[in-house]
Amino acid sequence: MTVSDFSERDLIARIASRLPPTPAWMPVGIGDDAAVVEPERNRLEVLSVDALVEGIHFDRAFTPPDAIGHRALAANLSDLAAMGAAPRLCLLSLALPGSFPIADFDAMIGGLTALAARHRVHVAGGNLTRSPGPLVVDITVSGTAKRRQILTRRGARPGDELYVTGSIGAAAAGLGMLKQDGLQACTGANPCAARYLYPEPRIRMGLLIARNRAATAGMDLSDGLAEGVQQMAEASGVGASIDADALPIEAAAREWFGRQGDDVMTAALTGGDDYELLLAVPPRRGRRLNEARQHGGVLLTRIGVCTKDPAVVLNCGDAGLRPLPKGYQHFR
Amino acid sequence: MTVSDFSERDLIARIASRLPPTPAWMPVGIGDDAAVVEPERNRLEVLSVDALVEGIHFDRAFTPPDAIGHRALAANLSDLAAMGAAPRLCLLSLALPGSFPIADFDAMIGGLTALAARHRVHVAGGNLTRSPGPLVVDITVSGTAKRRQILTRRGARPGDELYVTGSIGAAAAGLGMLKQDGLQACTGANPCAARYLYPEPRIRMGLLIARNRAATAGMDLSDGLAEGVQQMAEASGVGASIDADALPIEAAAREWFGRQGDDVMTAALTGGDDYELLLAVPPRRGRRLNEARQHGGVLLTRIGVCTKDPAVVLNCGDAGLRPLPKGYQHFR
Repeated sequence: MTVSDFSERDLIARIASRLPPTPAWMPVGIGDDAAVVEPERNRLEVLSVDALVEGIHFDRAFTPPDAIGHRALAANLSDLAAMGAAPRLCLLSLALPGSFPIADFDAMIGGLTALAARHRVHVAGGNLTRSPGPLVVDITVSGTAKRRQILTRRGARPGDELYVTGSIGAAAAGLGMLKQDGLQACTGANPCAARYLYPEPRIRMGLLIARNRAATAGMDLSDGLAEGVQQMAEASGVGASIDADALPIEAAAREWFGRQGDDVMTAALTGGDDYELLLAVPPRRGRRLNEARQHGGVLLTRIGVCTKDPAVVLNCGDAGLRPLPKGYQHFR
Repeated sequence: MTVSDFSERDLIARIASRLPPTPAWMPVGIGDDAAVVEPERNRLEVLSVDALVEGIHFDRAFTPPDAIGHRALAANLSDLAAMGAAPRLCLLSLALPGSFPIADFDAMIGGLTALAARHRVHVAGGNLTRSPGPLVVDITVSGTAKRRQILTRRGARPGDELYVTGSIGAAAAGLGMLKQDGLQACTGANPCAARYLYPEPRIRMGLLIARNRAATAGMDLSDGLAEGVQQMAEASGVGASIDADALPIEAAAREWFGRQGDDVMTAALTGGDDYELLLAVPPRRGRRLNEARQHGGVLLTRIGVCTKDPAVVLNCGDAGLRPLPKGYQHFR
């Protein structure tokens, strides 16, 4: 059975059946023309939208449906984490090929609602339509943050140190492994494929850093570290020097890139989908950073420093300085 | 030149160049990981998402790009109107075929931003991605309303009279005309094609009705009047009797359906895309309704009554009662 054996109403009911009770702050949830929510007192709202398009962001041949749902929400939650916001609700807009199996639909919603439940994100509503082509999963998330805790890209200053959460390159290597070996690549011993399929948004770290105001700027690495550093530097009006030796490149990814004959450094710097956070932290706020480090649930690695000189460079030690490679360009 | 000759950043800059200055209540707009907005005091937030998918909701052969942008936002604003909410901001998520001409991209954004400006809707952010298939325009809107003024689908009571704004059938007839004659169908003398291409969300009427609390229930008619009546009746736990003779079927649509050999009544009741409002109004609130009528900028026609009997019927006078035809079903 495929989704075309069901009415829109049936499909909405299948989603609704997986949701926890509507919270008191949401007087109208799924099923009306729009959702109605009560704003949180003394908080600003943080809103983001992101889409996963089949054939561009995932391939159903090696992406299990629960991973599609997980990744779509994780990408959005990562944007909230990068702003230091606590997630609150999401809206789902799905364009479904008529041939999409109903079991896959259920699994996709299951992957999404499981991640939503872990982060207490309520599905407030959405939209379902048929697609004559690819599966499209478009998600809008809304979160909240105190005004003085909002973390933008544009606050970094010369001298601020750059930190990254977790490790980089794993998702890009995982995607390569999945393309080559299919889901067999997804073994417990090798974290890369799982990192591509089930990225973990760094919500807790984002919140801790925002609350104790350790960072002057933050953003997430959906398009790779190199692209992130470029964008933060440009938005903040600074340059950056990244220490090649300091980069927390996932060991299994390093090995994979090497085996493919890729330049490991370039591959790790330009590989997208890691959804780690890039943070700029003034040296004198090191103690605050350590507080966040203790409870953030993820590694934090110092990878470089913001500079007055607007160039963005990779410091390769004895091999000298290289320009940072260009990240993923969506259109050109 | 097509969108693939530009980077994502270029395309975002083309959108940003058409936007008015960011309002004071939006400390972070387009360009960061997420938008940041200040909630309005003493208001609830009303959120909705809707997608237009090429090949399902429009055909580029006879839908000019500015109409694609207009319709995508209008469909969303109509949902806010149906809740009695004042629109405030939107987020755009676009999946663009690489072959999409840049002139069409600009025109599509122009159609959207022109409607947004008229209703003072600020574009707070969005997402751009390539599509390997259809053009997809996904829009999330956010508006505000006072708690006691929210208009849901579920408040209608037996005895409430049903009203509809404007006229019905025009958009469905207009779509037929466009399919047959292309954009030549879009003449000043015949309003149908323009009604399909540039629907007018009934924001002002929705706000007036919500503010003076004339109605017990409201919804918009994206899927046709028959489907709307069924859904409101079901959500409210009532039935409905619709007077066939009272329906404000657009004259040019009536003529068109007749010429095609369609049953005019069925075509007008099931035709979607009208984006009119359906309202349930207790008879004793007639004076409030008239106040709204004076300033709402659109006709209001009484088309029937809510009943205790849960059946939803079409009253054809001497020809007796008929069940209301089924509206558009998205999937089955």
